[in-house]
Amino acid sequence: MPDFAPDAGPAALRPAPQGPVFQRLALIGAGLIGSSVARIAHERGRPGGDLAAEVVVTDSSPAVLARAAALGFADRIEPDPARAVQGADCVMLCAPVGAYAAIGAAIAPHLRVGAILTDVGSTKVSVIRDLAPLLPPGVRFVPAHPLAGTEYSGPDAGFSSLFTGRWCLISPPAGAPPDAVEQVAELWRRMGSMVEVMDPEHHDRVLAIVSHLPHLIAFTICGTADDLAREGEASGADASRAEVLKFAASGFRDFTRIAASDPVMWRDIFLNNRDALLEMLARFTEDAQAMARAVRWGDAAYIEDRIGRGRTIRQGLIDLKQA
Amino acid sequence: MPDFAPDAGPAALRPAPQGPVFQRLALIGAGLIGSSVARIAHERGRPGGDLAAEVVVTDSSPAVLARAAALGFADRIEPDPARAVQGADCVMLCAPVGAYAAIGAAIAPHLRVGAILTDVGSTKVSVIRDLAPLLPPGVRFVPAHPLAGTEYSGPDAGFSSLFTGRWCLISPPAGAPPDAVEQVAELWRRMGSMVEVMDPEHHDRVLAIVSHLPHLIAFTICGTADDLAREGEASGADASRAEVLKFAASGFRDFTRIAASDPVMWRDIFLNNRDALLEMLARFTEDAQAMARAVRWGDAAYIEDRIGRGRTIRQGLIDLKQA
Repeated sequence: MPDFAPDAGPAALRPAPQGPVFQRLALIGAGLIGSSVARIAHERGRPGGDLAAEVVVTDSSPAVLARAAALGFADRIEPDPARAVQGADCVMLCAPVGAYAAIGAAIAPHLRVGAILTDVGSTKVSVIRDLAPLLPPGVRFVPAHPLAGTEYSGPDAGFSSLFTGRWCLISPPAGAPPDAVEQVAELWRRMGSMVEVMDPEHHDRVLAIVSHLPHLIAFTICGTADDLAREGEASGADASRAEVLKFAASGFRDFTRIAASDPVMWRDIFLNNRDALLEMLARFTEDAQAMARAVRWGDAAYIEDRIGRGRTIRQGLIDLKQA
Repeated sequence: MPDFAPDAGPAALRPAPQGPVFQRLALIGAGLIGSSVARIAHERGRPGGDLAAEVVVTDSSPAVLARAAALGFADRIEPDPARAVQGADCVMLCAPVGAYAAIGAAIAPHLRVGAILTDVGSTKVSVIRDLAPLLPPGVRFVPAHPLAGTEYSGPDAGFSSLFTGRWCLISPPAGAPPDAVEQVAELWRRMGSMVEVMDPEHHDRVLAIVSHLPHLIAFTICGTADDLAREGEASGADASRAEVLKFAASGFRDFTRIAASDPVMWRDIFLNNRDALLEMLARFTEDAQAMARAVRWGDAAYIEDRIGRGRTIRQGLIDLKQA
């Protein structure tokens, strides 16, 4: 796999594009990611623009659609997903991955022959499992995953530089047409992303360690602290909630940022990358238990060695200017 | 316990001080914390200054002492700790807590009657256990813990605004003279800190959850990722080290910052807050196992509920403007 492939640079470094990548882009879901794509496509998709000539937005939530209308990032808002995808040459699912099977069933019969179906979900094996069997012949399926986000969610949280300088992984199923893969790659490059194509199984294992396990751990420690603080209020022995909050800067705070992410989105990710996530969590738990044993028995050399590992990884990030 | 006590404001809000808090401040250790205290005291301790009229610095490392001399933040550099503390009215230990017993044995006979012995260690029960029995009569012992730091260490890492707006917890043993506690509190307030007095046992339990457990977890997950990446290089199935680093921004990166902290300092903290830390880790592990079970069996409601906890805590930080 190429490391920082020369063709994966941000849009500014690439030759001027010739016309929009798609004529009609239908976005299913207008949360943080969907509304960011809509903002970019809408801003830059006008005649002479380079992403999509028309942006159609749908969402299962009427409240989200009302905000989308007020924020004005769509050319057309369409409550019915079946109607939203009609005539679109690109349909992008921007919903929690647990909703894909139902969305797929609703839209599949209405997809145009030749249309590209893509998505932004954080798991890729489950997405292929849930969607591939539903698609009519002639629809080209190119799953993707932009590694971008914030701890905020909803249509107000999106912004047009969200993908700038961030990776987008494209994980097509076996036999996906290369020209469709290239069209999706080009869309993301024009949104400022660096693109890499990655096997779906490998994607899910890589994401389990760099993203899904860290989130599970962050959610868990916030819950542990919250339980403890509740008891602390009663007993006085442990930290009260006020103390946890006051003194959070000592380390705990770094965990709360990612733990503030959307519960439904993350619930679905955990359930749809179950095997890889449980395997990584089991490894982590073994390592934490080994650390606990070293603390209990005073094995200073072991503790110091494990702590030293963190520095190596951090230095690697600093060297890559990603710290 | 007062929450944001009105007398705990930063130095700028307080009435103009009358003369330095101490005549001679001896710092044992010139790493991140010690060199920051030295910088502040040296800059502001000149005649008419308000912290210490003279700053003496010692360190067990000749290399650190050479850097301290080159950086010029001490009035006097003294390789021998026994000589460094002679005549000092305040001696502050700024070394890893595992070194306190040996330092205490070396300096105790040389402490002046009436001197205040204080420290900056991250555990407080162990510090009292290790030092209190060694102290001659007439020495006043006031352990403290500034909740400030960065992931960098050593004399070059210190800076004079490190404590500005940060908490300093003072955890005196039973029977400590109130005027000595007040002098140490005043020193930290003049360095910009907010001060709170906290029972040593309570301190160690609060810090176990807000700081020590998060660090242990961050160190552990960095080690787990590093092991996995090593295997990934060989097998190709899992993330390679290059992939872990490239895609770290998806969550993992938030853990690496605190995992880059000083290994010896953290080894000593873990070993010296063993019981509270192991108890918190056991609670966290139970919670992580409950989450694993919910993921395995598809208990969506449980997962969503636990994830929601993170948001509550994060919102609390935002409300306190500490996010």
